[in-house]
Amino acid sequence: MARIFQKAIQLKSTLRYTQVSSTHRLALTNSPFTIATSHFYPSRCNTRNLTTKNAEGPKSSPPERLPFTRVTKEDLDFFRSILPGRTITDPDLLESSNVDWLKSVRGSSEVLLRPQTTAEVSQILRYCNSRNLAVNPQGGNTGLVGGSVPVYDEIILSTALMNKVLSFDHVSGIVTCQAGCVLESLSQYLEERDYIMPLDLGAKGSCHIGGNVATNAGGLRLLRYGSLRGTVLGLEVVFADGRVLDCLATLRKDNTGYDLKQLFIGSEGTLGVITAVSVLCPRKPKSVNVVFLGCGTFENLLKTFQLCRGMLGEILSAFEFLDSECMRLLNTHLKLSNPISDCPFYIVIETAGSDPNHDSEKLHNFLDEAMNAALVTDGTVATEESKIKALWSMRERVTEALTHDGFTYKYDISLPVELIYRLVLDMRQHLGDRARSVVGYGHVGDGNLHLNITSPAKDPALLAAIEPFVYEWTAQRRGSISAEHGLGLKKRNYIYYSKSSQAVTLMGDIKHMLDPKGILNPYKTLPDHLT
Amino acid sequence: MARIFQKAIQLKSTLRYTQVSSTHRLALTNSPFTIATSHFYPSRCNTRNLTTKNAEGPKSSPPERLPFTRVTKEDLDFFRSILPGRTITDPDLLESSNVDWLKSVRGSSEVLLRPQTTAEVSQILRYCNSRNLAVNPQGGNTGLVGGSVPVYDEIILSTALMNKVLSFDHVSGIVTCQAGCVLESLSQYLEERDYIMPLDLGAKGSCHIGGNVATNAGGLRLLRYGSLRGTVLGLEVVFADGRVLDCLATLRKDNTGYDLKQLFIGSEGTLGVITAVSVLCPRKPKSVNVVFLGCGTFENLLKTFQLCRGMLGEILSAFEFLDSECMRLLNTHLKLSNPISDCPFYIVIETAGSDPNHDSEKLHNFLDEAMNAALVTDGTVATEESKIKALWSMRERVTEALTHDGFTYKYDISLPVELIYRLVLDMRQHLGDRARSVVGYGHVGDGNLHLNITSPAKDPALLAAIEPFVYEWTAQRRGSISAEHGLGLKKRNYIYYSKSSQAVTLMGDIKHMLDPKGILNPYKTLPDHLT
Repeated sequence: MARIFQKAIQLKSTLRYTQVSSTHRLALTNSPFTIATSHFYPSRCNTRNLTTKNAEGPKSSPPERLPFTRVTKEDLDFFRSILPGRTITDPDLLESSNVDWLKSVRGSSEVLLRPQTTAEVSQILRYCNSRNLAVNPQGGNTGLVGGSVPVYDEIILSTALMNKVLSFDHVSGIVTCQAGCVLESLSQYLEERDYIMPLDLGAKGSCHIGGNVATNAGGLRLLRYGSLRGTVLGLEVVFADGRVLDCLATLRKDNTGYDLKQLFIGSEGTLGVITAVSVLCPRKPKSVNVVFLGCGTFENLLKTFQLCRGMLGEILSAFEFLDSECMRLLNTHLKLSNPISDCPFYIVIETAGSDPNHDSEKLHNFLDEAMNAALVTDGTVATEESKIKALWSMRERVTEALTHDGFTYKYDISLPVELIYRLVLDMRQHLGDRARSVVGYGHVGDGNLHLNITSPAKDPALLAAIEPFVYEWTAQRRGSISAEHGLGLKKRNYIYYSKSSQAVTLMGDIKHMLDPKGILNPYKTLPDHLT
Repeated sequence: MARIFQKAIQLKSTLRYTQVSSTHRLALTNSPFTIATSHFYPSRCNTRNLTTKNAEGPKSSPPERLPFTRVTKEDLDFFRSILPGRTITDPDLLESSNVDWLKSVRGSSEVLLRPQTTAEVSQILRYCNSRNLAVNPQGGNTGLVGGSVPVYDEIILSTALMNKVLSFDHVSGIVTCQAGCVLESLSQYLEERDYIMPLDLGAKGSCHIGGNVATNAGGLRLLRYGSLRGTVLGLEVVFADGRVLDCLATLRKDNTGYDLKQLFIGSEGTLGVITAVSVLCPRKPKSVNVVFLGCGTFENLLKTFQLCRGMLGEILSAFEFLDSECMRLLNTHLKLSNPISDCPFYIVIETAGSDPNHDSEKLHNFLDEAMNAALVTDGTVATEESKIKALWSMRERVTEALTHDGFTYKYDISLPVELIYRLVLDMRQHLGDRARSVVGYGHVGDGNLHLNITSPAKDPALLAAIEPFVYEWTAQRRGSISAEHGLGLKKRNYIYYSKSSQAVTLMGDIKHMLDPKGILNPYKTLPDHLT
């Protein structure tokens, strides 16, 4: 990267090697954040007419407990007989599984089951289905929409002990593993074998690959390697009634009938429990560069994106952004210092390629052009792993910084890329001084904005100002009210802002077909009332 | 490309610029091929026990006509009222829609409907469903498994007049169009706007994008841009009962509920009629190179593939092969001359990148290494479009050459890449001199073999020697008996070789949920008897 640096210093703005501390990516365990006092995330009564015909407005009240059976001593005896030592009922041990990472949703489950095999998952579900016991499948519990914790007393079915790599084909790069493998562990396993996982996200230290697939996680590499719908080649799934569906293929192509695994990708554990996955992994790049740039306007940021796509082409692997408000929170709450001069917008660009010299030359040419055209005003580049991680942390730790800023209202919006920041500006104007902070960051390359609004404490009046404004704004522009986080418990009733009632009805039919008693992850993903 | 050439001639083998005639890719219309005399593709009685429990063996007889209503004069009057001038009943005009491209399946439909709008498709299906009239949705009719023509008297519902581009976003590269757009026309439209379609296949001059999506077409660019499951962002689909499902999103990310469009991708028109699609398109590469290489052994071909993946990395866009038998057929039947010296195996490699100098250097380094290591023995490169097309035609016109060689038994197999040619060798040994030609070609990068066996005429004894041998061989290695062609009419009963009875049962449930009367493309995709 020396060449980039040497040439860059001749330009009107100075590119500096990153000096930020090489903090590793956010570890999600042992979070110190306080728990919100509400039992449920405070979704709001909305009486407006939705754009979709016949759709009911989202409800304010939490869903009522459905008439599932309550766990009895006999049930516990059964679970202990098949999972000796792995049937957890100690309230202290259950605590972390009953509460989501954001501490915004708390269930009251009294039993946590930790199967090790698909056969055990099958036994558990067959039993629960016959007894009408509700089940909350749980991976790393890193979800942001309350989808990974029980709402009432659902039995928690954890994949934590299903963490074995089953096979790896070094020719094709296809890995097959149990659902409970932690993403970061899988990444390390693959990197030792000259491959990488096609997805990467801030929660990688805790999240499970099964949960990633169940929520169709997006993350930082989607721009380059596409979604899990393309890279997941096979799944093994246990149905609500205990039947095991083996679609654990390891083939790039297979057009023999309907692609059933797609039903379970992104269904948030409501249609079946994913027990194993096979994933097509890209080769480990021989050269990785990360650039942190400053921009004066969002318009220039978009122009930089377009220039970047043209000039970096096939080596572009991420194009992320954060605004100056995010930087302020990183400075204030996490003591992370800005590696460049203050700007309204910051960009994180990652390149990954097979030839360090070519990549370096492409990157330099792009930076040269971007600075000559005054699209960016300052920047720094990193090629060493620790410095790359440090630059990435400026983007990845925004979520953590927000939790220190107060109660956070989180939105994960998909829009045509040219519109994504307009929502932040409109929201700021709309809220005036009612919010403490209104910040925007996210995946420019995917048209995915993370809009976050904080206040000193939970504030129903503020929420009433945010919603349905944010959803209506998005729906009017045919955006998605959940780009990558899913709907879970918190957003289930907002589905009609992005999907027609026809579509939601069909989703309900699919749910009924696969889980007629509705025992799998109840109160999640689908709205309380199907229209 | 001069640099590659100049350096290459110093190496022990000579790389020559391609001299083959610049024949354009195979046009599928006006095919001169004769029609097989059989009414149906001769599937064979198979009494063996399949590996899947409870699965019945594939049946020899064609499926019996199901008790659908026969079209009456009143029905025609109705169709003429909503599609004046576009309700075709002239047998001569119906001829080409009743027969598949391979001339291996012939239906006897008496009416062809040519709607122009989604509303018209909806009206047609609502009417047909209420009258219990069976419908065969038809795109470009280029399928190879008898999925795109009627089996009996099903009404043919053609998308040929639904050929409008609805929108194109030049920032995101997302195109939205009606289902009847011809792939090549779409490609041209996009190339004029500096983008390309993420899929390309030999039938591009005739096939419709709706048919591509309905069959989850693979083709030549899958290695680089992934499958349609990732690149198709939205669909509009009309259900059997005429309801319209609008999932025509133009967002890269949308996790609001189940991804319904996936149900229809690859379902071969049996679950709904696709009327519009939106597709995420890659930027048009600034530099494209095609290399045609010769290899002495398949082992060396695989080593060349591995070397190529490492050295060409992100610019590799296709890695295809054909064997010497394919070359013989190209020479004999199409008078295409071998652009290099005779070899047992030929490779077509395409690179696509953003920097011509970098691509050229990567390609040269790779060729240098491949020849120094004696992995390839001869080769030629092309950078000009006409020469690129000429080299590609050596791979793409194998299908056409085969039709001149006699009656062709076609197999489209997915396997771990290291096994794909072993099937050709084993089949040759197994058949001895009973076949005229046994040839192998296909997509090495995807582990997808096209195995084709010819004989002077239809030969039940030969077929009995091929099947179930080919399916058992594939199933024993956990391969797929249809990588990209689908199951259609011809292979519907072989599904159990690649899918469990559990999976097929669920497919049947999905079919019943979406098309309870079974009017959509009957006798296709699913087996005659669900177990």
